[in-house]
Amino acid sequence: MNNKRVLLASHPTGWVSESDFRIDEAPLPRPGEGEVLVKNLWLSLDPYMRGRISTAKSYVKGVSVGEVMVGQTVGEVVESRHPGFQAGDTVLTQLGWQLFGVTQELMKIEARGAPLSYYLGILGMPGMTAYFGLKEIGQPKPGETVVVSAASGAVGSVVGQLAKIAGCRAVGIAGGREKCDYVTRELGFDACVDYKTGSLADKLKEACPKGIDVYFENVGGEMLDTVLAHMNLFSRLIVCGMISQYNVTEPYGVKNLRFVLTNRIRVQGMIVFDWKDRYGEALAALAGHLAQKKLKYRESVVQGLENAPRGLIELLQGKNFGKQLVKL
Amino acid sequence: MNNKRVLLASHPTGWVSESDFRIDEAPLPRPGEGEVLVKNLWLSLDPYMRGRISTAKSYVKGVSVGEVMVGQTVGEVVESRHPGFQAGDTVLTQLGWQLFGVTQELMKIEARGAPLSYYLGILGMPGMTAYFGLKEIGQPKPGETVVVSAASGAVGSVVGQLAKIAGCRAVGIAGGREKCDYVTRELGFDACVDYKTGSLADKLKEACPKGIDVYFENVGGEMLDTVLAHMNLFSRLIVCGMISQYNVTEPYGVKNLRFVLTNRIRVQGMIVFDWKDRYGEALAALAGHLAQKKLKYRESVVQGLENAPRGLIELLQGKNFGKQLVKL
Repeated sequence: MNNKRVLLASHPTGWVSESDFRIDEAPLPRPGEGEVLVKNLWLSLDPYMRGRISTAKSYVKGVSVGEVMVGQTVGEVVESRHPGFQAGDTVLTQLGWQLFGVTQELMKIEARGAPLSYYLGILGMPGMTAYFGLKEIGQPKPGETVVVSAASGAVGSVVGQLAKIAGCRAVGIAGGREKCDYVTRELGFDACVDYKTGSLADKLKEACPKGIDVYFENVGGEMLDTVLAHMNLFSRLIVCGMISQYNVTEPYGVKNLRFVLTNRIRVQGMIVFDWKDRYGEALAALAGHLAQKKLKYRESVVQGLENAPRGLIELLQGKNFGKQLVKL
Repeated sequence: MNNKRVLLASHPTGWVSESDFRIDEAPLPRPGEGEVLVKNLWLSLDPYMRGRISTAKSYVKGVSVGEVMVGQTVGEVVESRHPGFQAGDTVLTQLGWQLFGVTQELMKIEARGAPLSYYLGILGMPGMTAYFGLKEIGQPKPGETVVVSAASGAVGSVVGQLAKIAGCRAVGIAGGREKCDYVTRELGFDACVDYKTGSLADKLKEACPKGIDVYFENVGGEMLDTVLAHMNLFSRLIVCGMISQYNVTEPYGVKNLRFVLTNRIRVQGMIVFDWKDRYGEALAALAGHLAQKKLKYRESVVQGLENAPRGLIELLQGKNFGKQLVKL
């Protein structure tokens, strides 16, 4: 039996294309002492991956040409030479875009009554990103207005629902009528602004009659510029992602930073790894809300490893609807 | 005896000119019940004044055409109908650009062995701005690198000296050799970068071999963009002023905000009024450092009220050297 892997074929400039990847077959790896062989079941696709295949400096080491694409997976232990794991365990790994892999760095998933794929989404990095970004940087107070961009996405959908749980007015920004309807009707946001039609500024004003107290940014660029002008005195801005900027060769210039001064806005970059000591707290809170049906969640599933490049490209284009996954 | 006043003649677009002001004579005002007549001795000129005469929205109400220009003054009580003051008291007021004025809002200056004009600078709003911005938002730790723009100015000069007192490496950014020499030789900063010659990025790199942990921003625009690329993981950026942007009609677009995300930078707007409950703490600290000769200070004095417009214009052009004042 062979392993199948997706390798980086070239560093993209601007938009990613499928030719930046190539499929590769390799012998099944064997676990060394202290290692575990894992069969991957689900692969997570996330916007941060664009940064990893760029040649620009980022916050962690990137993928080199010829290496297996990075990514988080949920898998099952096939063979263990690690005292903490045994065959049949379900685990969370960083094994990337491949069917099998050998690792020492993995985490056991304790059953909590949720589907396994949820540990790549609402109970995984995206959920924790939403949880810590909103709670610790956003610090929302009841009655305040929380706005989140990419509101139907893996992070945004959780941010808005947590804002509602915290007693806030939750307003999403999403692309297209279908996503906006999902955000308000399914997820229970108070409003959702479609950035693809009309004036975002006018629609934001209407959706946020008392201004914006917390903005959770996943998009960046012109959207950030527009929202800045509507932020309240002493408001907070979580910079969690800038997906609009990942595929451009010339970054957008943000002109409205004067509002940071005049309104004493606090802007802070957010990366979920910084909170790893508290993942347990987030997991318990999110699983609790899920069990009580206070959190809803949607997945967008691509079938088969060979379709992972297309899945990533669609995610970066905003064509996904909910948490983007590959079923292996 | 008449009062002399400087009124706003027109709202400037772009650069301010002397014709945006006009000198006016008016009868000496008489204090009503609970009011005090003050003879102004010193008028402070500050970058924030550009915002007050703009038609753009700012954080406080602006000056209308025909009104006396706003500004802080140090003066002497001439006549008092207020139980807390008597003739001869020296006071801090917001009476603006005029020789005399009547007010109920003033603060007595208790003698601390410093010249009266210092209460408009190092012991006044600029000193407190430096103190709270650096301490509360910058939160510098010993051994860290603190960079401040407009380093020879009223705020910047104090920021760098307080950074040295806090055990940090202090690096200034200033325009021209003379200012840079002052910043390093007189004020004791570890380095000062002249933004007017050569590559600011290269020189910053050289002056900050361990990167930048705290950036105290008084300038904004392209300078902010350049500095952002050199800021460390978990660094702090105090947005105190954007003097480069006050006279432009089209704001500069900042392209390097991705560093806020990748390096988890915390950016926060700072306006000194927010800290007014703690002015006493700052005054005691700054006066203490002055008395111990740990803080040096320089003033740039324009003679006579009629020259105040020219003084403000030179300040906005960066031609001043130290705290800009008008001796009335």
